[in-house]
Amino acid sequence: METLNFASDYIRGAHPAMLDALAAANAGAFTGYGTDVLSESARRYIREAAACPGAAVHFVSGGTQANLTVLAAMLRSCEGVIAADTGHINAHEAGAIELTGHKVLLLPGKDGKLDASAVRAFMERFSRDENRQHTVQPKAVYLSQPTEYGTLYTKAELEAFRRVCDEYGLYLYVDGARLAYALACPGNDVRLPVLSELTDAFTIGGTKCGALFGEAMVIPDPKLLPLFFTQIKQRGALLAKGFVLGAQFEALFKDGFYERIGAPAIGAAEKIRRALTEKGYPLTPPTPTNQIFVTLTNERYEALTKRVLLGFWEQPDEAHTVARIATSWATTEEETGALIDLM
Amino acid sequence: METLNFASDYIRGAHPAMLDALAAANAGAFTGYGTDVLSESARRYIREAAACPGAAVHFVSGGTQANLTVLAAMLRSCEGVIAADTGHINAHEAGAIELTGHKVLLLPGKDGKLDASAVRAFMERFSRDENRQHTVQPKAVYLSQPTEYGTLYTKAELEAFRRVCDEYGLYLYVDGARLAYALACPGNDVRLPVLSELTDAFTIGGTKCGALFGEAMVIPDPKLLPLFFTQIKQRGALLAKGFVLGAQFEALFKDGFYERIGAPAIGAAEKIRRALTEKGYPLTPPTPTNQIFVTLTNERYEALTKRVLLGFWEQPDEAHTVARIATSWATTEEETGALIDLM
Amino acid sequence: METLNFASDYIRGAHPAMLDALAAANAGAFTGYGTDVLSESARRYIREAAACPGAAVHFVSGGTQANLTVLAAMLRSCEGVIAADTGHINAHEAGAIELTGHKVLLLPGKDGKLDASAVRAFMERFSRDENRQHTVQPKAVYLSQPTEYGTLYTKAELEAFRRVCDEYGLYLYVDGARLAYALACPGNDVRLPVLSELTDAFTIGGTKCGALFGEAMVIPDPKLLPLFFTQIKQRGALLAKGFVLGAQFEALFKDGFYERIGAPAIGAAEKIRRALTEKGYPLTPPTPTNQIFVTLTNERYEALTKRVLLGFWEQPDEAHTVARIATSWATTEEETGALIDLM
Amino acid sequence: METLNFASDYIRGAHPAMLDALAAANAGAFTGYGTDVLSESARRYIREAAACPGAAVHFVSGGTQANLTVLAAMLRSCEGVIAADTGHINAHEAGAIELTGHKVLLLPGKDGKLDASAVRAFMERFSRDENRQHTVQPKAVYLSQPTEYGTLYTKAELEAFRRVCDEYGLYLYVDGARLAYALACPGNDVRLPVLSELTDAFTIGGTKCGALFGEAMVIPDPKLLPLFFTQIKQRGALLAKGFVLGAQFEALFKDGFYERIGAPAIGAAEKIRRALTEKGYPLTPPTPTNQIFVTLTNERYEALTKRVLLGFWEQPDEAHTVARIATSWATTEEETGALIDLM
Repeated sequence: METLNFASDYIRGAHPAMLDALAAANAGAFTGYGTDVLSESARRYIREAAACPGAAVHFVSGGTQANLTVLAAMLRSCEGVIAADTGHINAHEAGAIELTGHKVLLLPGKDGKLDASAVRAFMERFSRDENRQHTVQPKAVYLSQPTEYGTLYTKAELEAFRRVCDEYGLYLYVDGARLAYALACPGNDVRLPVLSELTDAFTIGGTKCGALFGEAMVIPDPKLLPLFFTQIKQRGALLAKGFVLGAQFEALFKDGFYERIGAPAIGAAEKIRRALTEKGYPLTPPTPTNQIFVTLTNERYEALTKRVLLGFWEQPDEAHTVARIATSWATTEEETGALIDLM
Repeated sequence: METLNFASDYIRGAHPAMLDALAAANAGAFTGYGTDVLSESARRYIREAAACPGAAVHFVSGGTQANLTVLAAMLRSCEGVIAADTGHINAHEAGAIELTGHKVLLLPGKDGKLDASAVRAFMERFSRDENRQHTVQPKAVYLSQPTEYGTLYTKAELEAFRRVCDEYGLYLYVDGARLAYALACPGNDVRLPVLSELTDAFTIGGTKCGALFGEAMVIPDPKLLPLFFTQIKQRGALLAKGFVLGAQFEALFKDGFYERIGAPAIGAAEKIRRALTEKGYPLTPPTPTNQIFVTLTNERYEALTKRVLLGFWEQPDEAHTVARIATSWATTEEETGALIDLM
Repeated sequence: METLNFASDYIRGAHPAMLDALAAANAGAFTGYGTDVLSESARRYIREAAACPGAAVHFVSGGTQANLTVLAAMLRSCEGVIAADTGHINAHEAGAIELTGHKVLLLPGKDGKLDASAVRAFMERFSRDENRQHTVQPKAVYLSQPTEYGTLYTKAELEAFRRVCDEYGLYLYVDGARLAYALACPGNDVRLPVLSELTDAFTIGGTKCGALFGEAMVIPDPKLLPLFFTQIKQRGALLAKGFVLGAQFEALFKDGFYERIGAPAIGAAEKIRRALTEKGYPLTPPTPTNQIFVTLTNERYEALTKRVLLGFWEQPDEAHTVARIATSWATTEEETGALIDLM
Repeated sequence: METLNFASDYIRGAHPAMLDALAAANAGAFTGYGTDVLSESARRYIREAAACPGAAVHFVSGGTQANLTVLAAMLRSCEGVIAADTGHINAHEAGAIELTGHKVLLLPGKDGKLDASAVRAFMERFSRDENRQHTVQPKAVYLSQPTEYGTLYTKAELEAFRRVCDEYGLYLYVDGARLAYALACPGNDVRLPVLSELTDAFTIGGTKCGALFGEAMVIPDPKLLPLFFTQIKQRGALLAKGFVLGAQFEALFKDGFYERIGAPAIGAAEKIRRALTEKGYPLTPPTPTNQIFVTLTNERYEALTKRVLLGFWEQPDEAHTVARIATSWATTEEETGALIDLM
């Protein structure tokens, strides 16, 4: 029997609808580099779902690639991007943003979230700094939805970011690598049209949300990023067979599927959270999405991971390990039950 | 009925064996980032096929990505890579190498090929240049097999490159985006073990050779490129679901399939070449692989492309267009016949 | 007695007026980073001399630094700069432009000069290229005045460049590392106001033209390059004691001195050219400025360079060496006579 | 009468010995790019003073340039440098290190200083991180001596850094932009030979320590940084008239002058500190070198700065300003007395 596996939301292949879409596409012939009919159709669905008819939509293979391509296109030399210290671009992309020449300006995050008022305070201090011409110029704010800690921004919080960005001439970028799990949360009020209204660019994750791989980058106002297509090419992020991504995103967005695909993950996570809380496990931070963080003694962690694969998150001290439990669109009730029994 | 399409070798989906492999993988659960069992199995097959048990093998999504990741890892600041002016890294990657900070040092190509003696002459001139410390330091040679013009290097030619590289401390890198079409040519004597013996790194193309997408990067001596895994990640080239690439390359290399998959393309190209030559079309340059270049008047090009999709190659003057006819593993006898009838 | 030295125009210290200016400044106290009164005064003189009251003027230490800072500020990712293959940014800056991420798009130069019609032909071909979105986007033209071969552009030639640049949305940048020697040529009609009228940025060389060191970058329309000051800082090109450059450029431009300082060099070069021609030396190319290129057999070159220091230029074949004779503002009649006697 | 000026240590020209050296050099002729006899002589003096006969010594114009050139030469792609958050490379170089593609890994500084044990704790955490291959690889430690806050490391502290660097394979780099003021402190035990023994590279500041401009980069083991000369050129940091820097550093190091030149600054600072403490000003942090930091109400700051120029340091809150008082080799007893009277 297969080992129980809650290590991450990218351990499984694709939702069957993706494979069907690829099999259907396989009979056809397509123009290259994302100019094909499937990609065009996927773009139309996304623009409709995001209520943003003028948006540019581009597909790339992975999330780090999407982040670095968008942010590098936004920033001039000597401009930087503000992010929570826990932000993916700071913590787990191996310095990808810096490799494009830009500094990630760190503010302390709380439960993975940045606070609009902290950004305002930072910008006020920057504005008062008589040496600011000798420092990196803040020009964009990076958020992720859900965050790396599984938490969510509310619409009101995003509006606050938009205001501070407008005040100080900053771009607002939202990394949606796990966006389907935000959209599937009952309490979430950041729907796709909210993102296209409030951000300058955002991504829609496919890899962790049902696709074999792929992320969509949405730029509500394409004039913002001239030459973006060629820049995607230049960074090695342009797939020759763009229809492979187009077919999957068409399948993900037809009939609003993307807004439903995360539901099983959220249901399973909710059950696990309830059970763990009853058993007295401290969950820090509490999260409404498909990621659950449990602090365990190293011994307990090692014993457990012989029977269920969990994600290593961090070792806050020499005696403890924080493990991540990630559910996904593919998590079954059996798996959820088995995990709860184990813990 | 579908329009006849010889525009390129990436217009079709994947060979059915790829979809089968992905469908089979879909039932499983995998560790991330290429550490999975399918990727490991694919690596073993490739190392065996290339007679290079110690090689590092990494999979990425596309060819530009592979080229820039390998070359940037090879070169220090102020070092550059020698390439034919027709080389893909010079002509059609939107400045990807320069974006990594390195100059492409251009030598005139002939029919897409570079000459080892031209590299030697260049290095001799460089060595005599008293100002050479003020110039880019040549450190690598870029070749493609087949070249962008569909021509092939022989084993003897590669050995000559190896000698000049050894003499001057240069790395030798071969871009094999269309390698299956070289391997399927009857006259080709550059088998995979030749590449692992003579080069410092080479790639094996999947995208144009039967896969949905993907390229393998082979580094015969992994000590050459320390930190390469993290550099792949940093460039956004590391797929979270690495098994999607692993599954395809396993299917491509099981039972030596990769060495056979290009055969239909070569057969079709041979027929087309014979027919076009009989009809009096000048083919420049003559090529043994799956790409054929025909110079047409603009009028003829426009008339033809209403009935068959061809690749635009270049407009050498205002009156003519060079069209590219590309066959692939998927080209059928019917398509080949229809094209011949049309022309 | 000191060896005769015509190796270059940067072998001598500064014109006495520079040392006087520095000695005078030494008693004062100045604000940092080029905000001082001397730099401001120098800027005013330069704006006046160039008939360009709105220009931004910045001072940096060296020519490579000026070139890379201006060009990197002009270009977005995936944009490149057109230059003659003999251009300094291509040949002798160790890949500085590429290190900023940009490709130098090479056109063949003739006697160091680029032809506006060659740029137009290149842009026409680019515009017709259906794959142009997959290639580097030409965005600037680099010229040097005088060129690296000592030749000069005429005003009419610069106007032709301006027209093709306007037609295709290109910036025009002129590297004036040796500009004083152009301005001192009787036949030159490219005065400073011509440069500020026709270019988007140009530099005024100090290092080779009488200063201890330093180049001025002139941007006629500063809106073109936002954040330029901070970008200078970021590239390590901002001198804390900016007044050291300000003092020298004030001395160079007070009373129009810069337009006269090159005269002795031009007079000496003229004498040498006449003498060498009489003696039958082939001068290739013929040049009106302070650089003279003579092809010698290797034996003759070696014999000569025991008695006079000459610049090594290149070794066109194994038997010959091209030597450069450079005069400067500091060249004396005695030195000129001694050189002529020697040769 | 001139306004009293304690704004920084780079407001004055050069020590007269520098101007004399330049005037003396002005009669000569020199080979270019730092190959001249003055630069060679300066190198010999520095190697002797640092007890490091095999060291490579290069001269560049400014401190940011030195920092970015050395660190970029040390680091491969995906490697980063550890620094205090107050470190110059993090705070006031406009993102220069990031522009070279490398992340500055921040640790909290105390009074401008980093703690070796904090670096060890960071490296231990990194070593335990199972995801470390997805993160920036720490490869160097950046210190400044004196720090940006005027504090000093002891020899014992540097030894502790060396140990942790050796343990984890890190380079140790010391930015000595104000090194003369450290060397002139009675309590300092980090002499030049200590730096060449314990670091992999360090700089010796000229700009703030008596020269018109210029920094020396010392690399005790030159094999560490291959191609360094060409990389200096490529970054625009190589002065054509290298003898201008050579002359100054020869003057600075002849007869051990550099170790004495900071003494007047330290004497003046000591007097000011004593007086301010007596008057009840809080000095944070207490510093032994030529920089003094005083927190003032905004009103007091504005009133004072009408009569004496002070450095703006930061505005910790809306009501207060931290001012920096910097003395230098040029500070006179009159100025010191006048400042004390004013405050």
